[in-house]
Amino acid sequence: MTAVPQALIPYDESLRFATDCFVALGVSRIDSERSALGLVEADLCGVDTHGIQRLPVYIGRLKKGLINKAPDIRFDMKTPICGLTDGDNGLGFVVAQSAMAKALEISDEFGVAVFGVMNSTHFGMARLYIEQAVKHGSAAIVMTNASPSLPPWGAKKPVLGTSPLAIGFPGSCEKDHFLLDMAPSVAARGKIRKAMRSGQSIPEGWALDGDGKNTTDPARALEGVVLPIGGPKGSGIAMSLDLLCGVLTGAGFGGSVGDQFSVFDRPQNVGHFIIALKPDVFLSREMIEVRMKEWVSTIRSADLADGFDQVFLPGQIETENREQRKITGIPYIRSDIESLNEFAGPLKVRPLEFV
Amino acid sequence: MTAVPQALIPYDESLRFATDCFVALGVSRIDSERSALGLVEADLCGVDTHGIQRLPVYIGRLKKGLINKAPDIRFDMKTPICGLTDGDNGLGFVVAQSAMAKALEISDEFGVAVFGVMNSTHFGMARLYIEQAVKHGSAAIVMTNASPSLPPWGAKKPVLGTSPLAIGFPGSCEKDHFLLDMAPSVAARGKIRKAMRSGQSIPEGWALDGDGKNTTDPARALEGVVLPIGGPKGSGIAMSLDLLCGVLTGAGFGGSVGDQFSVFDRPQNVGHFIIALKPDVFLSREMIEVRMKEWVSTIRSADLADGFDQVFLPGQIETENREQRKITGIPYIRSDIESLNEFAGPLKVRPLEFV
Repeated sequence: MTAVPQALIPYDESLRFATDCFVALGVSRIDSERSALGLVEADLCGVDTHGIQRLPVYIGRLKKGLINKAPDIRFDMKTPICGLTDGDNGLGFVVAQSAMAKALEISDEFGVAVFGVMNSTHFGMARLYIEQAVKHGSAAIVMTNASPSLPPWGAKKPVLGTSPLAIGFPGSCEKDHFLLDMAPSVAARGKIRKAMRSGQSIPEGWALDGDGKNTTDPARALEGVVLPIGGPKGSGIAMSLDLLCGVLTGAGFGGSVGDQFSVFDRPQNVGHFIIALKPDVFLSREMIEVRMKEWVSTIRSADLADGFDQVFLPGQIETENREQRKITGIPYIRSDIESLNEFAGPLKVRPLEFV
Repeated sequence: MTAVPQALIPYDESLRFATDCFVALGVSRIDSERSALGLVEADLCGVDTHGIQRLPVYIGRLKKGLINKAPDIRFDMKTPICGLTDGDNGLGFVVAQSAMAKALEISDEFGVAVFGVMNSTHFGMARLYIEQAVKHGSAAIVMTNASPSLPPWGAKKPVLGTSPLAIGFPGSCEKDHFLLDMAPSVAARGKIRKAMRSGQSIPEGWALDGDGKNTTDPARALEGVVLPIGGPKGSGIAMSLDLLCGVLTGAGFGGSVGDQFSVFDRPQNVGHFIIALKPDVFLSREMIEVRMKEWVSTIRSADLADGFDQVFLPGQIETENREQRKITGIPYIRSDIESLNEFAGPLKVRPLEFV
């Protein structure tokens, strides 16, 4: 295999470009910066699937009016701690960050806050919002639903999303934060595409083909559906996300959330579900810090299994990637960057500079 | 293979026997009935691992004073909606039910309530508490931690529990309730023992041997540890349970929760984490009912995968087992019942009658 030609871009150049793209579409500077940061953070963390390569999708939907460039995000407090957020089809980054900010404010007073969000759109990497919470010193559970791509266990038709369950708990320093951000699917479709390109088969249990049969052939898998982790267990998690983010809030559910890549006749109506929790609601802040330090140290020092040289906390690898890439720049695929620059031409956005 | 001789016992006879055993140890009648019901419900549901066969363990710990027969369960309300429960080492069934009852009462008023529980003991099948919630008309998230049996991903030493994450959401009738009750492990140790007895190998990815190497030999697997679903994903869920049930509440964590089968120098100090949520906190009760009905019907009618003849909701099979077994009686292994009767002799409890 020949190496794919790379482009190295400094973090702030990537951020400048993404911000300019949103601004060019009439999004306010502050919302543009928040959304751009959401994308670039993913690139920094190595979660490339949620980075600036997705800009054309968001921009395309902004152009069509399917994402509202100037949403009137409303909070309807149903009780002192439970708020329903209407995202007014704004950029998911802005909607979810606003809801989390409000939830953190309320949970500081009451120990906990619960927000349901409707009329939102794809909010990028879920880590963004649990990290928003842990930086505030709070724990959080964040869920979103998504367009259908995962079948309920026993079915071959996608009804559920491969959207994340994310749980954050603050540690004593950046690399000790607990930042779990996981989709309930065994493998992303991107991994299956990669196997196909390199002519390899995929493991049993990753996917069904178009007829609903187990397959190890990546081409046939791409005609079918990816499978949940742990069979009915991962399926149950995906269902829970759809219930709490969709049925509960007024957002789409049961397969009705629009696919951002292919459904252009209506906004997505994505739903989110957010719980913010003060980690010292039950014990003193000092006790929680001591206990969390001990827990982190116990996990990290557990005897290693064969083939491993370290036990990582969830999210730690991404945090380390970010630290590294802030210094070295972000490695992109050169042809992706060239496409982005071509795309940005008509927007009169200055092209990405890279080496 | 020869069939294992069975004993068929009516539901109320099983309940009578389990209740009598707890009463014989000095547990109040009401707490005895609640705990007995917790065990017998598991047998009715077909979750045999959590049924009356466990009685000797609970009774043994009661005898040794490691479970407190007359606990003073205290609720310390830290905010109007967040309560820390000290279970005073009482039977987990009683402690968790009391905490859920209190959480439901508060969530009726505020939309949500969060309870941390410390100084509890093994609470049986988690389904009990999410079903308590859905019968009340509420949604709930229930977690517990447990003695170490699962390694963090990358390690071979068990630090985390194979304890459940349970999520309940009420449907319009008993069989439409959503009752997810899942451990984050690929397979229970019981399944590995079963493979060993029948001379079969186990699938790759179920377990590590004592040296932390992947194994398909059930005997070697039993010297090692079971693995989490989805690798780091299931490990991340198990960590979340330990953080929220242990670190947050004052219960044991990081492997320090005592194993009820082997640690006899101290109470277990199990922790639970309970969220009760009004399903109509954001939308009207009528809207939620309509949306939930539509969701259930969408899931059930999804096109079937190869080899399946039905899509089940989480918990539905157990609900159907219960309905059936309430009529036909509960099938037990005859030698297990004979052991239980032998065990109950010194307690002066009337033996189980069976056919």
